[in-house]
Amino acid sequence: MTQSDFGVVGLAVMGRNLALNIESRGYTVSVFNRSRARTDDLVQKHADKSFIPSYSIPDFVQSIKAPRRILLMVKAGKGTDDVIDELLPHLSKGDLLIDGGNTFFQDTIRRSEKLSQSGINFIGMGVSGGELGALEGPSLMPGGQREAYDSVAPILEQIAAKAPEDGRPTVTYVGPNGAGHYVKMVHNGIEYGDMELIAESYDILKRVLDLNANDLAKTFADWNSGELNSYLIEITADILTRKDDLGSDKPIVDVILDRAGNKGTGKWSSQSALEVGAPQSLITESVYARYISALKSDRLVAADLLNGPDFTFDGDKDSVAEDVRQALYFGKIMSYAQGFDQLRMASDHYDWDLPFGELAQLWRAGAIIRAQFLQRITDAYTTKSDLHNLLLDSYFKDIAEKYQGAARRVVALAVSAGVPTPSLSAAVAYYDSYRSAVLPANLIQAQRDYFGAHTYERVDKPAGEMFHYSWYDEA
Amino acid sequence: MTQSDFGVVGLAVMGRNLALNIESRGYTVSVFNRSRARTDDLVQKHADKSFIPSYSIPDFVQSIKAPRRILLMVKAGKGTDDVIDELLPHLSKGDLLIDGGNTFFQDTIRRSEKLSQSGINFIGMGVSGGELGALEGPSLMPGGQREAYDSVAPILEQIAAKAPEDGRPTVTYVGPNGAGHYVKMVHNGIEYGDMELIAESYDILKRVLDLNANDLAKTFADWNSGELNSYLIEITADILTRKDDLGSDKPIVDVILDRAGNKGTGKWSSQSALEVGAPQSLITESVYARYISALKSDRLVAADLLNGPDFTFDGDKDSVAEDVRQALYFGKIMSYAQGFDQLRMASDHYDWDLPFGELAQLWRAGAIIRAQFLQRITDAYTTKSDLHNLLLDSYFKDIAEKYQGAARRVVALAVSAGVPTPSLSAAVAYYDSYRSAVLPANLIQAQRDYFGAHTYERVDKPAGEMFHYSWYDEA
Repeated sequence: MTQSDFGVVGLAVMGRNLALNIESRGYTVSVFNRSRARTDDLVQKHADKSFIPSYSIPDFVQSIKAPRRILLMVKAGKGTDDVIDELLPHLSKGDLLIDGGNTFFQDTIRRSEKLSQSGINFIGMGVSGGELGALEGPSLMPGGQREAYDSVAPILEQIAAKAPEDGRPTVTYVGPNGAGHYVKMVHNGIEYGDMELIAESYDILKRVLDLNANDLAKTFADWNSGELNSYLIEITADILTRKDDLGSDKPIVDVILDRAGNKGTGKWSSQSALEVGAPQSLITESVYARYISALKSDRLVAADLLNGPDFTFDGDKDSVAEDVRQALYFGKIMSYAQGFDQLRMASDHYDWDLPFGELAQLWRAGAIIRAQFLQRITDAYTTKSDLHNLLLDSYFKDIAEKYQGAARRVVALAVSAGVPTPSLSAAVAYYDSYRSAVLPANLIQAQRDYFGAHTYERVDKPAGEMFHYSWYDEA
Repeated sequence: MTQSDFGVVGLAVMGRNLALNIESRGYTVSVFNRSRARTDDLVQKHADKSFIPSYSIPDFVQSIKAPRRILLMVKAGKGTDDVIDELLPHLSKGDLLIDGGNTFFQDTIRRSEKLSQSGINFIGMGVSGGELGALEGPSLMPGGQREAYDSVAPILEQIAAKAPEDGRPTVTYVGPNGAGHYVKMVHNGIEYGDMELIAESYDILKRVLDLNANDLAKTFADWNSGELNSYLIEITADILTRKDDLGSDKPIVDVILDRAGNKGTGKWSSQSALEVGAPQSLITESVYARYISALKSDRLVAADLLNGPDFTFDGDKDSVAEDVRQALYFGKIMSYAQGFDQLRMASDHYDWDLPFGELAQLWRAGAIIRAQFLQRITDAYTTKSDLHNLLLDSYFKDIAEKYQGAARRVVALAVSAGVPTPSLSAAVAYYDSYRSAVLPANLIQAQRDYFGAHTYERVDKPAGEMFHYSWYDEA
């Protein structure tokens, strides 16, 4: 009996496309799905390809060469635990399971621990790029045992996207246990931030400058040809050119309801930032912006009830549009500075030793947040591997300083006009907080000491030496 | 042998002061502490009072009349589990444990579940007011079995603070299992928001208007005499009058290091808002503001490196100061609107049926966030018990509309001047988002459908009906 090189469990669109991608590199791939219809559909539609279909877990495991490499593409959560429990009795020491789902990193840490007791290696791997990326080349963020990664690296390097700049595959060893899923989670958080910054820019251009979808499409296409060049700006320009597919003559964007969903990875990213002490305000505001968008019926009531400011725009449209472009880039820099600061803090917190510069490399192709800009991040960490914050790198410092004026004007304009810019406002507040030698937290510490005897440090004594003031005795 | 009416485990300052408070109402109180020194100190310093000291858990339990009522004031987390495990074998069905620590509400849900299997009632009770409040009258937020609450209500009503407006005790039945600790958690989140809004106001007055501590003290004292009247504004004014107690001639606030600590309740509050889908941006920004304040050494490096805007203030100081006052009140309204919206969503999520109007009553005295303003919240829920958002109540709507101009001017000024106002900016963005009939989330849904086939709703079809656009076929 011919045995395969690799197994895939779960043949919904992502699993199916990854299986096709792997097979296309010359591997024989065993495939299994809980309901057999998907397995049959795959092997029937691709009868010429080297798939080995299985209809039971024992048969599936038997059909793969040892040491086995099995990719799980099942619904994250209990589904993953169930599949692992079913596979475990049939696996042998040295086999490797790879979870490619959108798994919460703490679950990956737990499963890695549990499987290692049976001698099974485990990789939690973030996969970005959507359906098309899975088929043609995703960005991969694998975390687990180093030797397990090495055993599967040749395949991962073949199926990953290749960066346009140098042809390098967008995969590398991210770190132990949950590191890969953590990095994917922050990638998604950054994706939320990028999308919200684009949405706020679009909203200002639409509501303040009164641009229509056609003007907007041109503006974003124009932006995409410059330093903002990125997949998300590119598809935004494309989206804005599309007409309603149900027959109205309107742009499709104008018939789509303004209620944004989410799959929880942005939420996790912010919850974890709160946990590790990382001031990641921009992504969090992006998550909240989706939440408030979901309150559509409340907003319709409020819109009737709550007045906005009196405002008439009398500026120069082209000059404001250029300000918005610069503000968007400024916001993007703050978002990535926060995201990488979160990665740094998480790396310390979980002892992962994340390779920051290489992470930016991973996202240069395949990933939803792919952008020219990412090379700058790699360069920054190449210059200084222990860089504490992107803003301390000369490229980002220079852009931030140069574009801060535009960012400030745009926030002031939006605030005066009554157009919400939660993420862009957070970007400016972050920049000003981060570059403040003195913040008003002295007053907060005084208050905490006053009502709760929480003590404080002094400016003229070593950090860590705590003082308490006798507020009540002197009152 | 005389038996006591009530037991207290844990005699650090909060437990000790609550024990003294209870005893002062005519009860005999059994007291136990893991290390006997604290027990001895309490009973020796108060030899005339009705305390029964115990030095072992069995003796302690035996010394209390059945059904027993025991308050746990131990370190939240494992400490609480340990004490419960030690007490459990000695308790009888119908006994009641009350956890008065700053416990994470999910732990309270878990413990409530576990104890109910042994027939032991459990109340998780938030306690606000600090040391002095514990002694003289705290604000209490008890959650647990209704009948358990009724059995201990007479004591809680006696020890709680009394609202100045009507003399009512600041305690009520909040809801089942973790509801009390949840409400305390959101109370603390709101406290973070109030403190950050005050800190940002102080920072603008200091850095833009160049007021000194003396001017600032007068300004806050003046504000405290009006609609902003509250404990936190009052102590801010007082703090600003105090001189360094280590001999320099400086105001104490100027020698306190600008690095704010936290005990985690603000973090939990934001993490839970993210979990239940509540757009609680202002409190979250307050948490992040403390985090960024903690990065003092990074900020000192950044302050040298990163330029701010060119800015010179040439406005009228008094008029800007009045704008800041109005902006602070505007921000406070947004913060409470968000906090109560979070409570509403959590109440639905955990099936608690929280009494919103009464929660505001609980905080009118004793609590750190006590303020005149809270009566307005009670009034709003009295008028409409299923109010979806405070902004939809006429009082809050009127103030928000009236003060929005000042809030917008202050944010625009701070953004132009380079003084960070993350929470105040979040307040304005929230107001403008909430009153937007159309947000740019349509574009976000288009992007999500484009790269991930996540589908979208249409403006001309019923909500919940999902559509997908063939982006690639038409490209």
